[in-house]
Amino acid sequence: MALRKGKDYIEALRDGRRVFHAGRQIDDVPSHPGFAGAVTTIASLYDLQHSSELGPTMATTWEGQPISQGYFPPRTAGELVAKRRNVEVWAERTFGVMGRMPDFCAQLTVGMLDAADVLGEADPRFGENARAYHRHCALNDLCLTHALSDQFYDRSKRASQQKDPDLILHVVRETPQGPVVRGLRNLATLAPISDEVLVYTIPPRQPDEPDYAIAFAVPMNVPGLTIICRDLYAEYADPERLPLSARFDEVDASLFFDDVVVPWERVFVYRNPALLARFHGLISPWSQYSTLSRLLVKLEMTIGVADLLVEWAGHAKDRDIQVRIGQLVSDTEVLRACLIAGEVGAYPSRSGYLMPKLSPAYRVHSVDASDRVERLVQEVLTSSLVLTGGASDLDNPEIGHIVERFFVNNAPSTRDHLRLLAVAADMVQSAFSGRNTLYERLQSGEPDGWRVRAAGIDRSAVHARLLHFLREGWAV
Amino acid sequence: MALRKGKDYIEALRDGRRVFHAGRQIDDVPSHPGFAGAVTTIASLYDLQHSSELGPTMATTWEGQPISQGYFPPRTAGELVAKRRNVEVWAERTFGVMGRMPDFCAQLTVGMLDAADVLGEADPRFGENARAYHRHCALNDLCLTHALSDQFYDRSKRASQQKDPDLILHVVRETPQGPVVRGLRNLATLAPISDEVLVYTIPPRQPDEPDYAIAFAVPMNVPGLTIICRDLYAEYADPERLPLSARFDEVDASLFFDDVVVPWERVFVYRNPALLARFHGLISPWSQYSTLSRLLVKLEMTIGVADLLVEWAGHAKDRDIQVRIGQLVSDTEVLRACLIAGEVGAYPSRSGYLMPKLSPAYRVHSVDASDRVERLVQEVLTSSLVLTGGASDLDNPEIGHIVERFFVNNAPSTRDHLRLLAVAADMVQSAFSGRNTLYERLQSGEPDGWRVRAAGIDRSAVHARLLHFLREGWAV
Amino acid sequence: MALRKGKDYIEALRDGRRVFHAGRQIDDVPSHPGFAGAVTTIASLYDLQHSSELGPTMATTWEGQPISQGYFPPRTAGELVAKRRNVEVWAERTFGVMGRMPDFCAQLTVGMLDAADVLGEADPRFGENARAYHRHCALNDLCLTHALSDQFYDRSKRASQQKDPDLILHVVRETPQGPVVRGLRNLATLAPISDEVLVYTIPPRQPDEPDYAIAFAVPMNVPGLTIICRDLYAEYADPERLPLSARFDEVDASLFFDDVVVPWERVFVYRNPALLARFHGLISPWSQYSTLSRLLVKLEMTIGVADLLVEWAGHAKDRDIQVRIGQLVSDTEVLRACLIAGEVGAYPSRSGYLMPKLSPAYRVHSVDASDRVERLVQEVLTSSLVLTGGASDLDNPEIGHIVERFFVNNAPSTRDHLRLLAVAADMVQSAFSGRNTLYERLQSGEPDGWRVRAAGIDRSAVHARLLHFLREGWAV
Amino acid sequence: MALRKGKDYIEALRDGRRVFHAGRQIDDVPSHPGFAGAVTTIASLYDLQHSSELGPTMATTWEGQPISQGYFPPRTAGELVAKRRNVEVWAERTFGVMGRMPDFCAQLTVGMLDAADVLGEADPRFGENARAYHRHCALNDLCLTHALSDQFYDRSKRASQQKDPDLILHVVRETPQGPVVRGLRNLATLAPISDEVLVYTIPPRQPDEPDYAIAFAVPMNVPGLTIICRDLYAEYADPERLPLSARFDEVDASLFFDDVVVPWERVFVYRNPALLARFHGLISPWSQYSTLSRLLVKLEMTIGVADLLVEWAGHAKDRDIQVRIGQLVSDTEVLRACLIAGEVGAYPSRSGYLMPKLSPAYRVHSVDASDRVERLVQEVLTSSLVLTGGASDLDNPEIGHIVERFFVNNAPSTRDHLRLLAVAADMVQSAFSGRNTLYERLQSGEPDGWRVRAAGIDRSAVHARLLHFLREGWAV
Repeated sequence: MALRKGKDYIEALRDGRRVFHAGRQIDDVPSHPGFAGAVTTIASLYDLQHSSELGPTMATTWEGQPISQGYFPPRTAGELVAKRRNVEVWAERTFGVMGRMPDFCAQLTVGMLDAADVLGEADPRFGENARAYHRHCALNDLCLTHALSDQFYDRSKRASQQKDPDLILHVVRETPQGPVVRGLRNLATLAPISDEVLVYTIPPRQPDEPDYAIAFAVPMNVPGLTIICRDLYAEYADPERLPLSARFDEVDASLFFDDVVVPWERVFVYRNPALLARFHGLISPWSQYSTLSRLLVKLEMTIGVADLLVEWAGHAKDRDIQVRIGQLVSDTEVLRACLIAGEVGAYPSRSGYLMPKLSPAYRVHSVDASDRVERLVQEVLTSSLVLTGGASDLDNPEIGHIVERFFVNNAPSTRDHLRLLAVAADMVQSAFSGRNTLYERLQSGEPDGWRVRAAGIDRSAVHARLLHFLREGWAV
Repeated sequence: MALRKGKDYIEALRDGRRVFHAGRQIDDVPSHPGFAGAVTTIASLYDLQHSSELGPTMATTWEGQPISQGYFPPRTAGELVAKRRNVEVWAERTFGVMGRMPDFCAQLTVGMLDAADVLGEADPRFGENARAYHRHCALNDLCLTHALSDQFYDRSKRASQQKDPDLILHVVRETPQGPVVRGLRNLATLAPISDEVLVYTIPPRQPDEPDYAIAFAVPMNVPGLTIICRDLYAEYADPERLPLSARFDEVDASLFFDDVVVPWERVFVYRNPALLARFHGLISPWSQYSTLSRLLVKLEMTIGVADLLVEWAGHAKDRDIQVRIGQLVSDTEVLRACLIAGEVGAYPSRSGYLMPKLSPAYRVHSVDASDRVERLVQEVLTSSLVLTGGASDLDNPEIGHIVERFFVNNAPSTRDHLRLLAVAADMVQSAFSGRNTLYERLQSGEPDGWRVRAAGIDRSAVHARLLHFLREGWAV
Repeated sequence: MALRKGKDYIEALRDGRRVFHAGRQIDDVPSHPGFAGAVTTIASLYDLQHSSELGPTMATTWEGQPISQGYFPPRTAGELVAKRRNVEVWAERTFGVMGRMPDFCAQLTVGMLDAADVLGEADPRFGENARAYHRHCALNDLCLTHALSDQFYDRSKRASQQKDPDLILHVVRETPQGPVVRGLRNLATLAPISDEVLVYTIPPRQPDEPDYAIAFAVPMNVPGLTIICRDLYAEYADPERLPLSARFDEVDASLFFDDVVVPWERVFVYRNPALLARFHGLISPWSQYSTLSRLLVKLEMTIGVADLLVEWAGHAKDRDIQVRIGQLVSDTEVLRACLIAGEVGAYPSRSGYLMPKLSPAYRVHSVDASDRVERLVQEVLTSSLVLTGGASDLDNPEIGHIVERFFVNNAPSTRDHLRLLAVAADMVQSAFSGRNTLYERLQSGEPDGWRVRAAGIDRSAVHARLLHFLREGWAV
Repeated sequence: MALRKGKDYIEALRDGRRVFHAGRQIDDVPSHPGFAGAVTTIASLYDLQHSSELGPTMATTWEGQPISQGYFPPRTAGELVAKRRNVEVWAERTFGVMGRMPDFCAQLTVGMLDAADVLGEADPRFGENARAYHRHCALNDLCLTHALSDQFYDRSKRASQQKDPDLILHVVRETPQGPVVRGLRNLATLAPISDEVLVYTIPPRQPDEPDYAIAFAVPMNVPGLTIICRDLYAEYADPERLPLSARFDEVDASLFFDDVVVPWERVFVYRNPALLARFHGLISPWSQYSTLSRLLVKLEMTIGVADLLVEWAGHAKDRDIQVRIGQLVSDTEVLRACLIAGEVGAYPSRSGYLMPKLSPAYRVHSVDASDRVERLVQEVLTSSLVLTGGASDLDNPEIGHIVERFFVNNAPSTRDHLRLLAVAADMVQSAFSGRNTLYERLQSGEPDGWRVRAAGIDRSAVHARLLHFLREGWAV
């Protein structure tokens, strides 16, 4: 029971999990070139928790045990901000492009600890399970993912009325050890290289479909679980050409549960559509805080990349460029303001933890900002994003001198220039970036859904003032 | 020396000022139908400072004297927030559509007090003048405007090289009483109904054109000053059809200075291009705080108007409507976050006052929000914004019953419905609203200028981190 | 039976029609300042039909009688283009801002002639009525309007289920002379100054609400009809300040039918929801052609206004300006291409007339172009749109010389400059312009409705090609 | 001298050209996995010219010789449209994603034939060279590319003033065989798999830098030429996962000219900045016609992909979906209108060929449409674009049955579904798609440049009409 080291994280991935890609099973996940980059990155960050320089920022003590900041349930403003600072440390070392690093789901378990009382109202065991699960993950410094989406289904029909009843994950029977579940879950980011998976759902289930209303957790090697991956962007990526893909691809996956037995102590919501509908709302504010903090770092680093490249191209002072960079900076500073406001407005949750007050509006802004950054960086860097030479050409005796001489512009060195251009392309043109744009936009549900949530904010005081004006006249 | 009463404000406007509109001189400004509405509104707000309910919010004590909150130079967080609350009181009673109410320029004089040391470096008199002017305005509870723009000029030429050398305001000679100035200033909002005008400029003057580099203040009835107004939207406005135009039109004007003698004690920058260039930057953060606070109220009230009307039309729950309302709410909540962040980050100015920390990014967001609100409200209310019947039809014996019966929809009463529709149209379709949209967008300079300013925010730490990555490798 | 003269049009408006505005009945419509401008404009265009220069363009011969081009049912490409040229003549003289000039509804009666066979399938009388109505209007050179929208109603309920059954226009009983109708119609543009009104509807009626499914025409002075106008923008408009408002305001109105008897020979669809649903689709392509042709002229003239003003302000060559002007020009040229494509693709209608082939896509583009033009002109002209001095100031002895000298910039004369600035403001800032923006956007139904219609275009050939690829492989 | 066969095209690529990628030289271009897909595709299209079904559409006769339609200089409307139909055939088989297929540059040589007289004015040899080059390419049915952009250079300095004088391609000396050129050219799409390259430039050269002002052509194996490629998206692409990348990646490259001798008979502009500035303008309208025709097919096919996928997901009828699909259809139909208008307005060029009249506006629209299609398809397909299972999983015994059963939705078969999802992702999410979006936006210069060109369209007639209004009054 201690803060994890990188090698422990890596070894734990060799647990017999069944991972498939492009019709082939992956023999050894941590060493496979599709995963090695992200695994190494996460491992090095685990190690960083033990460094004298950053350890105190990344780790803390809870109930006498050392844990990662991500798992800490804050009660004071200082503790809350310490959690943000931890996110920044992780994000600054990964360009903010890893959305599902351990910190993200750690926050969800804090949410479960916070929501334990509510879960316990349905059944005291579930409240205890939630508390115990947070403790288990925190003390073992686990790396989790979650899986919320149903796979390809007929959107004109309900969960229980799909042509194939097994399509959507559901309870098929009970055993003394726990319920047996069957069906698919989609887009479990990081699943192949995480320790466990939290399973619940966002789309509502109807009162008459309780079998589809369950929340639980299982390790990735649980019998019956199959993990099917999307394209592994890192697999053939030259680290000099696709530096982010090579190092930071978290990989998304579908999970097929083929009659998996979920231990009772890992069940948090069971055949309870009403409670499941509340579950996500109760725990997600904690992870939103992490997400917005990470995105802020990503925006800052993206602007920095654009800054240096336009400087090196000799047109940093062009008004067109400045206006676009200025829009990016504005989006970033406004997001920072949202985080500050969320911290200032933090309030004690029902369990007495200090909950940041994050308006759905902040999510709307952050998605817009994320979408704009891609387009604006493209407009600023234009065709230089289609990079012909790369730093890997420099050592070739036939063309190295050509690339060295002619691909430098005003950069300090050709290598600097090519590496930064590669970063830029991997941020706004590569497959990795295409997927990341979608991830930022969709990871908490479709953006218009957040607008509808924002529309639900109470405005009755304004309405009353308006009616007063209409009736009592306009005299002040 | 006391908080002003409404009637004192009104009487002070009868000071011999020369105001023209559409080729005719205005005999009595406060009673002219083009001004009476706004004058009455401002007067009633001056009176409100004396009310037991809101007086304590709107007024305070400074150096032992009662003054309006607008003139108070804050030193604590509580004092800063009290200033915001005062803006809200004024704005809530005017739908946030009056951008140049006394509070706005009062903040600028606080800025002058704050900047007095800097001004005094050029000439100790100017520092003293700035302090004295703040005191004069505060203790007399004056209503000021400012005039920053040059009138129609050739944008391809400098200030001193225009075809007509008198076009742009400049010093023509000196007298013992003070410098004599000649030329035009444009878009002095509220000028016909304010007490005095602050004159300075945003566009830079070159080192070799000192005559064009001056900042000063004069009363509106100073000899030689002519005030030429744009269309008076209130002049023929039916208060039931154009309720905002009728009550809140501040009127914009050009000011012609025909050899006006500016008393030395009202000169703040004199023939000093470098200092003038700093002047606006030193004082405008104070008024920005007021502007953003007011705009927040305006957005809230606009959303409220849309809310009630879609509710009464029976489609408040349509997803299309909810998405658009949700965008409006998001823009509003994000602006609120900006203000909160500005307050949290407030820092002591050079003179020891507490200065809100307002990023140019907040201005970029607020302009975008203001532009979007117009369009979104149009999309939500569509053709109902072209209102045929109005509350003024209700008393007509021939059509009153028709309008009463058929123009009600689900509103509590037809009168409520018609009045609120009239408010909506006056917010996004009338000439008043057209001008207001431009005002919000342009009042602090063109939006892209703010983007360029945002681009100037220091990002060297991010640049250093990126260069480190490029050179030292990506290992964490 | 001949081409009309302006004075005949004017006199015909003195027919006892009941027109109300702001709670007052209008005594004499053509001389009332709220209508006189538009009436004079339309009258002068009627007169222009008799001029030697433009008469041959504006008028033609049909069945041996001289008629306006608008009423001519074309059978050849040349005849079709002649109709476009006629629209251009009307629009070029009115800046393209009058959307409901006689030509517009004339095209609808051509559509009724074309659709007569379809109408006759329900009842042969209705087919004959349609043909006779076209002939009646054409030979008398009438100025019509139409009224398609229901007034304020609960959008969550059907037409026949509104709280007040009389709210929505419907048949209340039959008489030997014809059906008796009761209820409101909204946004009958031009109604106070047109000869007759065509009444039908776009929103579908259900099979079980036949009383709400009727199409007919009546003159504006029919007993029982009350016309209630929106604000009359021309009423107090200084023609030097609001030159478009003063001359071109068509005025929108609500029509209240208080048990109006519709003569049987003016009934085109009767208690027939299915047929009514087709009616609009059958006739509106003819008026779309007119609308797009007119809008093209409007866009051209708006760009011209912006061109001259930026030239006179000395920044026509700035890249920012050129990019925005270039966007406006692009939108315009693309609209021109749409019209050309519509003419090239023209095909014989069921009745043998030559019908322009206008994709709903062209409407989507034209609405986007119209929305953009407003914003782009605002961005190009910025605060000069809030015009302080006007040409009406030039004759004032006190300020005339100031305005003359300082409001000229590089324009040929101050008067030119001020008049063109006034045109610009009346195009993108005045109440008139605010209403016009809404008119262009909404006059044929909400823009997203047109997108949905565009989505309905057949694409089965592409689908087949894709399925072939999926199954047969990609070999060419 | 005949229409080429696929195998001849392939063999011709084995000509000793020096092609590098990621620091390694490519041994055999046509068989290398990074090129084989595109080579096979182009070869099969060459073969298709010989088919009985499509041969007559793809080929024609010129001066008695069979040639590809792309090389035919049209003189009649029918001949012009035949060229469009040929583009459609090529594009329909390649999803419209190959922008540099042989047809594209073939049109440029038609432009050179057309411009020969102008080139001959500088030196009669150059006119003859242009005619001979078109004949050479047409009769040998060659596949060309062009290279117009300078590589990384300091944008604040002129071509001749860069730090390294050899950076930008220029003449270093003359020999009897021809001039010797040195320097880099960037983004020669298709260069590794084309026969020859046309070299000229868009950015203007100054009168005093004639060495930088040259246009010429050389084969890809000319001594001294080095080709450096960007990432080869096809190299490791699973054709079931990245079907477009695998088949259609044209590859972009930089070309380094290390003292290449250009034969005099391949020189078209020589040390002539003024003529070079005209060169692009003279020939590019011909290729624009090809580009817009291809893009139309691409848009149609992209919409088709979205259509089928939303149908199979059961939400094709949702209004949100319909509105977005409708926008895509509108953009497409408007582009079609532009092409029709270009054909209708076609006019005889100076050499008597029939030149389509393509406004720069059409390019502005097509770029906007291309940008929107990416975003709208993303909004419609959301997270299904991050595809986990693929058709290549179907044969795996462990997971094939899972994918077969659960990845089908309402598609006719799982294989259909997975393949079409793969196409969709390769259109809007993959690296290939990211580069294609940039290609469409930038391939003819930055979009704002086209807006500036559109701004240059003559509008003097409208200006005259406006001035007439201002001065003569508004009477019609």
